[in-house]
Amino acid sequence: MTQAMFERVALIGVGLIGSSISHAMRRRGLAKEIVGSARTKATLATALSLGLIDKGYERAAEAVKGADLVILSVPVGACGPLAAEIAPHLSAGAILTDVGSVKEAVVRDIAPHVPAGVHFVPGHPIAGTEQSGPEAGFAELFDGRWTILTPEPGTDAVAVEKLKAFWTALGSKVEIMNAQHHDMVLAITSHLPHLIAYNIVNTAEHLQRVTEKEVIKFSAGGFRDFTRIAASDPTMWRDVFLNNKEAVMEMLRRFSDDLAELKRAIEAADGDTLFRRFTEARDIRRGIIAAGQDTPAPDFGRVHGSQPAPETESGARK
Amino acid sequence: MTQAMFERVALIGVGLIGSSISHAMRRRGLAKEIVGSARTKATLATALSLGLIDKGYERAAEAVKGADLVILSVPVGACGPLAAEIAPHLSAGAILTDVGSVKEAVVRDIAPHVPAGVHFVPGHPIAGTEQSGPEAGFAELFDGRWTILTPEPGTDAVAVEKLKAFWTALGSKVEIMNAQHHDMVLAITSHLPHLIAYNIVNTAEHLQRVTEKEVIKFSAGGFRDFTRIAASDPTMWRDVFLNNKEAVMEMLRRFSDDLAELKRAIEAADGDTLFRRFTEARDIRRGIIAAGQDTPAPDFGRVHGSQPAPETESGARK
Repeated sequence: MTQAMFERVALIGVGLIGSSISHAMRRRGLAKEIVGSARTKATLATALSLGLIDKGYERAAEAVKGADLVILSVPVGACGPLAAEIAPHLSAGAILTDVGSVKEAVVRDIAPHVPAGVHFVPGHPIAGTEQSGPEAGFAELFDGRWTILTPEPGTDAVAVEKLKAFWTALGSKVEIMNAQHHDMVLAITSHLPHLIAYNIVNTAEHLQRVTEKEVIKFSAGGFRDFTRIAASDPTMWRDVFLNNKEAVMEMLRRFSDDLAELKRAIEAADGDTLFRRFTEARDIRRGIIAAGQDTPAPDFGRVHGSQPAPETESGARK
Repeated sequence: MTQAMFERVALIGVGLIGSSISHAMRRRGLAKEIVGSARTKATLATALSLGLIDKGYERAAEAVKGADLVILSVPVGACGPLAAEIAPHLSAGAILTDVGSVKEAVVRDIAPHVPAGVHFVPGHPIAGTEQSGPEAGFAELFDGRWTILTPEPGTDAVAVEKLKAFWTALGSKVEIMNAQHHDMVLAITSHLPHLIAYNIVNTAEHLQRVTEKEVIKFSAGGFRDFTRIAASDPTMWRDVFLNNKEAVMEMLRRFSDDLAELKRAIEAADGDTLFRRFTEARDIRRGIIAAGQDTPAPDFGRVHGSQPAPETESGARK
């Protein structure tokens, strides 16, 4: 058990990330008290009943009072208005952070509201699942994953170190970089993959010559993996694309250029180019497994190692 | 234990699919004898040592002699030459099938070689993992998945029924459709997703402003799921794209049109369109889980439910 790092942590938003932070704090006893607020009364009630927060407030402005750590776990587009609402109620010396997937826009929207004496340190844990909501969280979500902090120049170094230690205690590894670079890195590692996954699922839905039923039945050929990514929270992702437009557009241009090359290779029956490109892509996978960011166990659409129940199978055989 | 359906099954090729067929046959005792051949001596030796085949032959023409079921489990591009090689050695009344991901081209390449009295029934199990080779196979690969058979008009109905019963006994569900429709269905459910996955991994590798090290470190944001798909066998996939050009090109055109719409929405800051498209994509995921083609368990880059070893974690925290 680690000694508590904060007296009172205010979680503004208790979805997948907010609730996972709560579980991970409880696991290590990092906060003497966890309070919170949520956008809806229903979510707030769920968060209280799950024990994610000790006290719940309908208004974020109430929740942050007396907190020495305030974490905004809300869609990127909600950060600005929230910051304006809570700013007058933040305690002197408090650390204010967020978990948004875009950092330049969040700095733009939050920083102007932050009063003197409050330390704003933007953050982003690179971890998640395709699920959403307070029930989706679990303590291990951040274990072995990276959290990026993007403090602006001049930010109090002690506050940055303390937040870094906090994320480390949550199980994460921590890297510090500037907000612009973060947005470029995430545009390729997260934002473009999600946009492409959403798009390919949309394309499948719009087909006339292949039915949706067929798309679902035969999805084990690769499509189902895209649908997993495309099951992520639509509000969160809408805000990501609205707020990281430039970097996403740059990555999309490069993606389209590369796709045009593959298309030309297929049209020209240029098997050598296809083979070379496919082989290159395989290598980067090995790096990801070596870095512990994915498991080498094959994924075939079931819980690994489990076998379907015999009854299901015999039923399916009829 | 089911009664043996075949006296002697010849597996031509013992990679992921061929070896899984062997395991699934053994599980139910479907063949009295399993023989096989492989492209390399090393693979043949591995197949023998793993017990995938009872007898191994360096030449496919030798392996098929006396077999009442011959299964070609090789890349699509290898089917034509193989068919020419084995044709004179096929037994009267034998069923010849394949497992290729493209069916029109396979019919085009194999059918002309098939002697009278041999029943050619093209097949394609929609199942796989990102791994390759004889060690990658396992008996449960086909359980609950679909296998598509695409017999040409006039094919012996008894042979088709027998092959259907065989795939059912391997654990699969079976659907029969024509080769052209198969190729269109697979173009959207499998071929386009793989092309897009390969392409996005290539794009990430070509970046200057984001390093490969960063792409790997922060891959948990979505990118790693694409690298899993892009880790599939390059030879197999080269042959798929060379042999299903038209259908893939049609899907690629539709994909690009849809992507252009998303791009316009981002540029115009049209959040409503983005939200609507993302919500639609989420719905199809539910259909896939309801159809048993994927598990609802969240994927977060580890074996489901497992926790990282504490030593690893404390090491990572340093």
